[in-house]
Amino acid sequence: MQRADFDRIAERLRNWGRWGEADQRGALNHIGPETLKSAAAEVRDGKLFNLGLRFDRNGPQPGRGRFNPMVYPTDLFTPLNPAVPNVCFADDVIHMPLQCATQWDALAHVHYDGLLYNGCNARECLTQKGALKMGIDHLASPGIASRGVLVDIARLKGVERLAIDYAITVDDLNAACEKQGVTVGVGDILLVRTGHMLAFTADGDRGRFMGLQPGLSATCAEWAHDKSLAAVAADNMAVEILHPEIFASETPLPFHMLALRDMGMPLGEMFNLEALAADCAADGRYAFLLTAPPLEVTGGFGSPVNPLALK
Amino acid sequence: MQRADFDRIAERLRNWGRWGEADQRGALNHIGPETLKSAAAEVRDGKLFNLGLRFDRNGPQPGRGRFNPMVYPTDLFTPLNPAVPNVCFADDVIHMPLQCATQWDALAHVHYDGLLYNGCNARECLTQKGALKMGIDHLASPGIASRGVLVDIARLKGVERLAIDYAITVDDLNAACEKQGVTVGVGDILLVRTGHMLAFTADGDRGRFMGLQPGLSATCAEWAHDKSLAAVAADNMAVEILHPEIFASETPLPFHMLALRDMGMPLGEMFNLEALAADCAADGRYAFLLTAPPLEVTGGFGSPVNPLALK
Amino acid sequence: MQRADFDRIAERLRNWGRWGEADQRGALNHIGPETLKSAAAEVRDGKLFNLGLRFDRNGPQPGRGRFNPMVYPTDLFTPLNPAVPNVCFADDVIHMPLQCATQWDALAHVHYDGLLYNGCNARECLTQKGALKMGIDHLASPGIASRGVLVDIARLKGVERLAIDYAITVDDLNAACEKQGVTVGVGDILLVRTGHMLAFTADGDRGRFMGLQPGLSATCAEWAHDKSLAAVAADNMAVEILHPEIFASETPLPFHMLALRDMGMPLGEMFNLEALAADCAADGRYAFLLTAPPLEVTGGFGSPVNPLALK
Amino acid sequence: MQRADFDRIAERLRNWGRWGEADQRGALNHIGPETLKSAAAEVRDGKLFNLGLRFDRNGPQPGRGRFNPMVYPTDLFTPLNPAVPNVCFADDVIHMPLQCATQWDALAHVHYDGLLYNGCNARECLTQKGALKMGIDHLASPGIASRGVLVDIARLKGVERLAIDYAITVDDLNAACEKQGVTVGVGDILLVRTGHMLAFTADGDRGRFMGLQPGLSATCAEWAHDKSLAAVAADNMAVEILHPEIFASETPLPFHMLALRDMGMPLGEMFNLEALAADCAADGRYAFLLTAPPLEVTGGFGSPVNPLALK
Repeated sequence: MQRADFDRIAERLRNWGRWGEADQRGALNHIGPETLKSAAAEVRDGKLFNLGLRFDRNGPQPGRGRFNPMVYPTDLFTPLNPAVPNVCFADDVIHMPLQCATQWDALAHVHYDGLLYNGCNARECLTQKGALKMGIDHLASPGIASRGVLVDIARLKGVERLAIDYAITVDDLNAACEKQGVTVGVGDILLVRTGHMLAFTADGDRGRFMGLQPGLSATCAEWAHDKSLAAVAADNMAVEILHPEIFASETPLPFHMLALRDMGMPLGEMFNLEALAADCAADGRYAFLLTAPPLEVTGGFGSPVNPLALK
Repeated sequence: MQRADFDRIAERLRNWGRWGEADQRGALNHIGPETLKSAAAEVRDGKLFNLGLRFDRNGPQPGRGRFNPMVYPTDLFTPLNPAVPNVCFADDVIHMPLQCATQWDALAHVHYDGLLYNGCNARECLTQKGALKMGIDHLASPGIASRGVLVDIARLKGVERLAIDYAITVDDLNAACEKQGVTVGVGDILLVRTGHMLAFTADGDRGRFMGLQPGLSATCAEWAHDKSLAAVAADNMAVEILHPEIFASETPLPFHMLALRDMGMPLGEMFNLEALAADCAADGRYAFLLTAPPLEVTGGFGSPVNPLALK
Repeated sequence: MQRADFDRIAERLRNWGRWGEADQRGALNHIGPETLKSAAAEVRDGKLFNLGLRFDRNGPQPGRGRFNPMVYPTDLFTPLNPAVPNVCFADDVIHMPLQCATQWDALAHVHYDGLLYNGCNARECLTQKGALKMGIDHLASPGIASRGVLVDIARLKGVERLAIDYAITVDDLNAACEKQGVTVGVGDILLVRTGHMLAFTADGDRGRFMGLQPGLSATCAEWAHDKSLAAVAADNMAVEILHPEIFASETPLPFHMLALRDMGMPLGEMFNLEALAADCAADGRYAFLLTAPPLEVTGGFGSPVNPLALK
Repeated sequence: MQRADFDRIAERLRNWGRWGEADQRGALNHIGPETLKSAAAEVRDGKLFNLGLRFDRNGPQPGRGRFNPMVYPTDLFTPLNPAVPNVCFADDVIHMPLQCATQWDALAHVHYDGLLYNGCNARECLTQKGALKMGIDHLASPGIASRGVLVDIARLKGVERLAIDYAITVDDLNAACEKQGVTVGVGDILLVRTGHMLAFTADGDRGRFMGLQPGLSATCAEWAHDKSLAAVAADNMAVEILHPEIFASETPLPFHMLALRDMGMPLGEMFNLEALAADCAADGRYAFLLTAPPLEVTGGFGSPVNPLALK
């Protein structure tokens, strides 16, 4: 995408000031009490799905940049009271990137032209102590919960998984909603299934999972904006398509920039949608209650999460 | 408590084998589809409360044993593509005990007489690679969600917070339910408010918050068992009372042992219940949908969590 | 010290360009082959002293800012080959600040007016990837070894340890050398004993050890410069005096700034000099071979070290 | 090697009790004042070589098991006093395995048949808190310094590096000493050059460097014992040969077991000997003063080190 074209879209989508000069929650402001009530109304069968990956040394990171979680037991057979040696506890410590597996991006995660969402100055906000503004903590309280809608693009296309160079279009989103018989509403959280997760969970191929991959094209941000979505998550690493041509352009990761920086719309990555998608296909219901609160890591650029879908 | 008395209770509560020899989810098995539907039915006003503490260097750990989370930014102004220096991302890494702030105990967290829940052999299960059985991962998939019920013992007693040597009794639990007009059902998750959290959140006194404290007496485990609760969480550090006499007895942390090891009932600690409790007092409704899934940390002895209550 | 006075000293001591525009080793350049030979000649009795503190959770850090090392065993009874279970290894991981106990400051550790040693621009050199210039790696290869000279100021003053508000003067340094019968030569490394280490090692009082403390006054930098010292280390936390008045001045830590930034002279902190000092007092020989190479941590701002003195 | 043959050697070499029942320094006891004096006498030209690798993300670990050091800046432009914003410091934290690059193995690092050096019971000594006995701390105080002797086996064989399946023999050691005109004495530390380090430093091939590799055969332990060596270090990952046949035998890593567990002789790994070896070849002098003190990590199973050779 040419920078001029990108800018035209960005300008139209930009939500800066929309929820006040001090706002740090962006599109999550679309979620109101009515949304939550309608979300709870989707819980009809009492089914529960967790969408998080495992956190351990065998996670999806192939070892460049981010790494997989390391967990260190610090106690295994430690008596609570040394005088009672048969009553013990076990404890452990974790060391991990905040964005190593299933996770939310904070609004502070990306920026361009020196500004974050809501016009926040990157040089002032991004510090050695973390994000002074737009950190993940602002998405963590009161948390992320809403009506979730799954759009299963792989199923729409009749494939197990999309080709790694497939760019999902606005037409795809509309077609999936129509085929699935679901309507996206204000404040909804969109879950996009590409099937690319299978590169990791089925094939065990971290390099492929984290490499070039299918995902949303930049113009889908306009759709998300027009639908007043609260957030978008997907089963790939980056929500959007990762393609060498885009990466080499003036606007690498354009969907990230439009969503996080211009719209203030959180992105959820590496959501494992396989079991949920199978269930949606089976019963024909693609809407559910989604709860996926980040940990309130002060100034964090992301947070691990174990999202829950209740149907 | 004498060990003989403890053993009598433990024997009566012990759920080993109840859900099969291979079970690793314990009392969470009480949560069925009907429970989830009734939980969702509690969402009437579309209110959302998150019950998690912040995760940062200023957390509740006073510096003995466990410590507060340390977050290290690894990127702040890193271009996604070096050729496009004005389009950047920020990243970070966290180092923390899995049980340093708001968290769930895994069933593997405590044991006595060499056995964990379901008769699992501690020497075989607890390893340098973490818990081979009864790890927090087994509570993380499909996650923890149910109907939550708050019992506000501080309010019952007409105080802001219970005295640090106050042992909550079964009578207190019954009286609170009656006063609040709420009935506890099969599979519910009980949230116990002592007010002790204020020692940290209001007073900023970590030493007091993590020291001697009010909480459940051991016999409350019988109540939890008879009510078929799925889990119990509280706003203090240990759910149960921490008292020198108990700690010096043959059964230090008796409620932990009965709950985690004999009943297989997860414990949630340091849940911040202040805002939720105020709302419950205001509208008289003490039941809600609670979602609080641990991260699926393979073999972990606990997990941080940001619990959500939806009313 | 007024900034103007400080600047006058700084200007006189500044070694920028002295060893070339690209130099990153500063005063270590004073160490030549003759220095090393004379240092080795001090090894007459075959005595060995290590000057490093322990690295563990009970280290000198009282818990503000830096913390004490945390060591996590990752293997304890792991067979090298699963088929041979009785042949095992043990492994561990460490998490620690690079400056938590006995350590060297890198030249990049401090700066003022936006510049590091040799005129290096701080904004360009200090990055999320560490110090691009003046990192500890430049002191690590070929390492730090030279003739060491101990000046025992506590003994000079006839006390076990100096008062916490005592500022060591140039006269003290001269008097100690004279009393000890030792001459400081080009390229020597000065070890200054204040006795303040005993606040930690004897009293176990971390707060006192890391708080206000005796040490070198700023003008001692002139002496170090005129003597062409290669480095200075001490048995306190900061080499120089830590005093509220100085800290509140325009030039907090003036000796650090003059040494590291203007002279390019490394500082060694928390060297445990007790056993060595006792031996020097006993045999009247205060010179020795000192080897104290930092780890070659690329871009590090410091490094732990276990210095050795051979007499 | 058959276990019976191994046991015959082990029995002959076993130093248990030789330096007392409480000894935790093993063969380092061979180093006495005379050794140190003769070592210092080798410093004739005032040359200094550091033998340590860099510690950073680009280290030799290919990403299985151990990992490369991660360094996190925690401060970059932090004023010492907020009122004086132009006077700043920088700080950082490191996270690394204690055995990830140039390092010493502690005597507690390996064991067989449930016993460590000096008959120490592994089950009692190896704990979640580290090694209660035979930890690296016992090698750190008073440290490791002695006369070092380089044997350049690659040069002996007329190759840049030994083939990866080459097992260095006792005859090789003797031939190298003879060809080099050097005599090994009591308490010396042997540095063995295989050239295998070049797989990492020249080729950048971590996988090859850490994989199958040339090194000492098990019988070299007898030579080390008969020469009363204090320690042995090499430029490969494991000092000894890593070969599938040996690894599949009843005694995987036999040299480790004989050295660390039976003889109590420390092993130094990944010493970078290239520059030193070139110098030795040039001037024909293969002996030098070697100082290589581990950090005094309490209970550690190893320690990073930046060894120094002074000639």
